[in-house]
Amino acid sequence: MDRMFETLFAPGLDVNAHQPLNEQLQALLRQAILEGRLPAGSRLPATRALAARLTVSRNTVLAAYEHLIAEGYLETRQGAGTFVSVDLPDAALQVRAGPDAIRSDVLSPPGTKRPLAGMPALDHFPVDVWARLSGSVWRGATEAQLLHNDPAGYLPLRQAISSYLEAARGVVASPDQVIITSGIQQSFHLLAESVIPQDRAIILEDPGYPGMASAVRSLPHAIRFTAIDQCGAITPPSAGDAGLLVVCPSRQYPLGYTMPLKRRLELLEWAKTEGSFLLEDDYDSEFRYAGRPINSLQGIDGGKRVIYSGSFSKSLFLALRLGYLVVPADMTERIVRHRVAVDSFPSISNQILLARFIEEGHFTRHIRRLRAVHKNRLGLFIASAQRWLSGYFKFQNADTGLHVVAFCRKGASLPPDTALSLIAGKARLGAAALSASYHQANARQGLLFGFANITEREIDNRLKELAALLAQETGF
Amino acid sequence: MDRMFETLFAPGLDVNAHQPLNEQLQALLRQAILEGRLPAGSRLPATRALAARLTVSRNTVLAAYEHLIAEGYLETRQGAGTFVSVDLPDAALQVRAGPDAIRSDVLSPPGTKRPLAGMPALDHFPVDVWARLSGSVWRGATEAQLLHNDPAGYLPLRQAISSYLEAARGVVASPDQVIITSGIQQSFHLLAESVIPQDRAIILEDPGYPGMASAVRSLPHAIRFTAIDQCGAITPPSAGDAGLLVVCPSRQYPLGYTMPLKRRLELLEWAKTEGSFLLEDDYDSEFRYAGRPINSLQGIDGGKRVIYSGSFSKSLFLALRLGYLVVPADMTERIVRHRVAVDSFPSISNQILLARFIEEGHFTRHIRRLRAVHKNRLGLFIASAQRWLSGYFKFQNADTGLHVVAFCRKGASLPPDTALSLIAGKARLGAAALSASYHQANARQGLLFGFANITEREIDNRLKELAALLAQETGF
Repeated sequence: MDRMFETLFAPGLDVNAHQPLNEQLQALLRQAILEGRLPAGSRLPATRALAARLTVSRNTVLAAYEHLIAEGYLETRQGAGTFVSVDLPDAALQVRAGPDAIRSDVLSPPGTKRPLAGMPALDHFPVDVWARLSGSVWRGATEAQLLHNDPAGYLPLRQAISSYLEAARGVVASPDQVIITSGIQQSFHLLAESVIPQDRAIILEDPGYPGMASAVRSLPHAIRFTAIDQCGAITPPSAGDAGLLVVCPSRQYPLGYTMPLKRRLELLEWAKTEGSFLLEDDYDSEFRYAGRPINSLQGIDGGKRVIYSGSFSKSLFLALRLGYLVVPADMTERIVRHRVAVDSFPSISNQILLARFIEEGHFTRHIRRLRAVHKNRLGLFIASAQRWLSGYFKFQNADTGLHVVAFCRKGASLPPDTALSLIAGKARLGAAALSASYHQANARQGLLFGFANITEREIDNRLKELAALLAQETGF
Repeated sequence: MDRMFETLFAPGLDVNAHQPLNEQLQALLRQAILEGRLPAGSRLPATRALAARLTVSRNTVLAAYEHLIAEGYLETRQGAGTFVSVDLPDAALQVRAGPDAIRSDVLSPPGTKRPLAGMPALDHFPVDVWARLSGSVWRGATEAQLLHNDPAGYLPLRQAISSYLEAARGVVASPDQVIITSGIQQSFHLLAESVIPQDRAIILEDPGYPGMASAVRSLPHAIRFTAIDQCGAITPPSAGDAGLLVVCPSRQYPLGYTMPLKRRLELLEWAKTEGSFLLEDDYDSEFRYAGRPINSLQGIDGGKRVIYSGSFSKSLFLALRLGYLVVPADMTERIVRHRVAVDSFPSISNQILLARFIEEGHFTRHIRRLRAVHKNRLGLFIASAQRWLSGYFKFQNADTGLHVVAFCRKGASLPPDTALSLIAGKARLGAAALSASYHQANARQGLLFGFANITEREIDNRLKELAALLAQETGF
């Protein structure tokens, strides 16, 4: 093994660490690649040799290599071994690493959504656990609890979120960088109003979440759009006046594309050149039904130009209204000060409840359970949809999120998708009009079907019912 | 009895109504005065004659007259009887009546406050009831509860608030005019951002609540101030560009003056001429320890130019974060639509809990209990303060609110009040610097002592401790 790798592996792996050995190895290699210590095209040691050097099993090394190949950091050449991808833009690679894991192969689409149509399996929400914790929050409460007024949010909740995001999403953040909000709308407003100068433009993905566009329109900033392709948001031209680009790299809304590493690095480079921030809207990253969840853009950047936003509206329930921002350390104070002026500080009850829900392991258990339930419902939904509706719609393959994208077939004589959305409602199906997500010209017609919050025995009935309604409508 | 009164009393009083007879009579007379049906200077029937006419006891009539005299609607002339006050500006009297009750005599000051110093007696908060309700909110919760997303707030809570405000504060509002918010800051922002044009000025009382000034400074609107006198906010000159005047008529913050009817009518007239709205910040109206609580400005206006704002931060506890706006019916939609863009909708848990807390009578019971506790603590506080601190401060008489105003004595060689506030903190006394409430020149030096959240046996100790610290400081 050459000197480069000897140096790299000198610290060895930590058998006593909480993190599995293959993930430690991944992190080590990923960081070396992002920092340029392993240049593009470098050949990696053979798995057997590396396993011997690190005194780990060969499977550990194999798992790490495979994961990094899937993420786009490494590539194999037939019979020649494993190499650092040549596809990664060198300039962008200096941006610095953090724990991260991204797929460079464009995962087959699918989507996710936000209106009421995109709800998780609420029949599996552990209402009993929630009720028990809800009572316990106030039993024996002290005066300190009645007066709790931290404008950044309840510290144990910020700690729980920070740990969760680090493990599940590769987000690099101390609890001090986490700001509790009432969800994405408030997160976005606090950020834009306190950090983005008013003479700078805010750029959104087109198509994209309509609620975000209306949020920007309530601000003084100019609004611009960037189209998406199969790699997600297309890197905007450098105009020198952008202040914030809002992207959904894990799963573009509504079309569900996952952004590959190359595009992520391009965007980070763009943000640096432009002097702009990126807002990573990771709205339902918990729901991936094949493979490992994709790690965050924030982790690649190390939280310098990327602000990370998430919420519990999808992973728990809509009416909870708890979300968070993860911001660069030197940005916290400005945002928190603005929060004091516009909203004082967040209510304590739900914060304590949620912190306990996470700390006691209920959150992870719930997400795991939902993944299995959703995956099963997704399969049933697609099978039924193909059976009943394939004459009307072309369905995208989906392995993530909470909705299935159905494009209207040209020759099917369907009414506008806004009307289709109402017809679907009659069949008790939550389905948002795809065209509503388009902000400029060339809106595509289709429906975003929520599939996760329909019980298994109802799915087929409802799709059959919709087919009957559409047959009436189109005169077939 | 002359024809005017015969007509007025023709409908009679309703002995079966929930409202006591003397209050019915008050409301009837008040409305007739405000609508101009009883002109200024009119002589009222003798109490005995009116009692006979209405077949009620003479005490009922006496009580109604006395209350209206206290409110400034009526006045007595030595030996000549009771008359409609001549002091009320005729032009303003057409504004229309609602149930209302105001003192025209300027009540001896006192105050109330908002920083941590101005907390209620938290040791009397019924944590056990709150914990029980908190658990019950989620027991057997349905999917509808998980998905509740009314951006105006939970309807049963809006109903409970509407009924409470009508009975306790004379506010005229259907539940549709109530918008649930996270407190005064959010109430104010939602209102200003969606309803007040950016080229219109926002006028605040000076001195006034510092949090309100910083809230305005985060908006694009110009900020202006109006001084206060013993009647509260002085009617600003008509500049034609004001969009909103924020006032605390029940109890001016921080000086505690109650605005008499005449000034209220002047302000309403000003608002009409100016084309401006008034925001009535009724932040702690529950705590009056002598006489009846003063009714709202909104009730006089009937909710046309007055927006009413309240919260539960003082009456329940700070960390709850629930407040509300009561707005003119035709304004609701604009504010709610703006809310959707900036904050979606409020969280459900606390809304259900609070609605039940009010519906089950706990809220009224709690307020009643607090009034008694606070009144007692206020007496103890003033007595101790006079004993230990009268060399340093001149104390205002107080019969309302949650703080006592203490003006620094000129010759007492005290450090600046911002330093005094810290010294008071060392003696475990919450005391905000009075000068921080002044926005322009001529700030007065003093402290706003929170008295309500100190147990009876601690009050004397802490004030004695402060006296010792001040003796060190001033070298006495």
